[in-house]
Amino acid sequence: MKKFEEKTIQTTAIFDGKIVKLQVDDVILPNGNMAKREIVKHPGAVAVIAITHEGKLVMVEQYRKVLERSIIEIPAGKLEPGEEPIVTARRELEEETGYGAKEFTYLQTFATSPGFADEVIHLFIAKDLYKIENKAQLDEDEFVELLEVSLKEAQAMVADERIYDAKTAFAVLWLGLQ
Amino acid sequence: MKKFEEKTIQTTAIFDGKIVKLQVDDVILPNGNMAKREIVKHPGAVAVIAITHEGKLVMVEQYRKVLERSIIEIPAGKLEPGEEPIVTARRELEEETGYGAKEFTYLQTFATSPGFADEVIHLFIAKDLYKIENKAQLDEDEFVELLEVSLKEAQAMVADERIYDAKTAFAVLWLGLQ
Repeated sequence: MKKFEEKTIQTTAIFDGKIVKLQVDDVILPNGNMAKREIVKHPGAVAVIAITHEGKLVMVEQYRKVLERSIIEIPAGKLEPGEEPIVTARRELEEETGYGAKEFTYLQTFATSPGFADEVIHLFIAKDLYKIENKAQLDEDEFVELLEVSLKEAQAMVADERIYDAKTAFAVLWLGLQ
Repeated sequence: MKKFEEKTIQTTAIFDGKIVKLQVDDVILPNGNMAKREIVKHPGAVAVIAITHEGKLVMVEQYRKVLERSIIEIPAGKLEPGEEPIVTARRELEEETGYGAKEFTYLQTFATSPGFADEVIHLFIAKDLYKIENKAQLDEDEFVELLEVSLKEAQAMVADERIYDAKTAFAVLWLGLQ
């Protein structure tokens, strides 16, 4: 998939943070002209479609500083360096919800913001959930509230934008097609 | 929606680019501790679920430098300053595909990467398409190829990750539910 490829002539590092890096690349366009591309580097993330024995979708509400509001999302989190996505997925599900899952399967991967960031999300499905005693702790700067919502209610929440998160909206639509 | 609000103490501007800005905010967490938040600012975008008279979904293939590959997406683009999303949606559909639409309706808005970027995408549905003669030109650094794909084929492309873009995957699932 190299159609319209843009070759990099020079990369200028701008910022190297705890979560993102930023660089500006000078590229040659397919027509030979030059352009600059602003590139946000992200380690990638996982998200988990976790379904309880009652058939409810497990979600968490948390404050998202970038949006200056709290939003409702399926459990999700960043990959640690070198970590297999399924390991991240199991960890984030446990930390954010206290659930483990006997059945854990990979669904698919997609890019969230291909215009400016390289973040991809690996999506997993967790079934046959059980509560973990003495669950792993959240990161010290993380605060979440657990929600368990029926498919019908979740679909209504997508339609009226109470679910305002792309991966979660995808998860709800996907569930409705099973 | 201010649950677990994080109050900003200080904002440090890092980068002010053509597409994104980057800042680091010092915040007070709900438990009184301090944390830093890396925040990518983006003007917001639109995406268009455009359906031809033959019932096909209109998509474009383009090179995404951040991913170092070309991907298939529904038509989409950034908001210009002060621009109404529906104006952007009509413009991007025309520029990227040459189509206008007699029926243009708002579907919903979602955040694409709430962990690190404030980008939201406003999603529209375009029906009753017609070809525009002497269509508006693409941006000078933009190269796209038009595709028109049946719903069944698009669903297969989501399942096997030929569609690797979150908004486009959402659009295909949404269409399948109509």
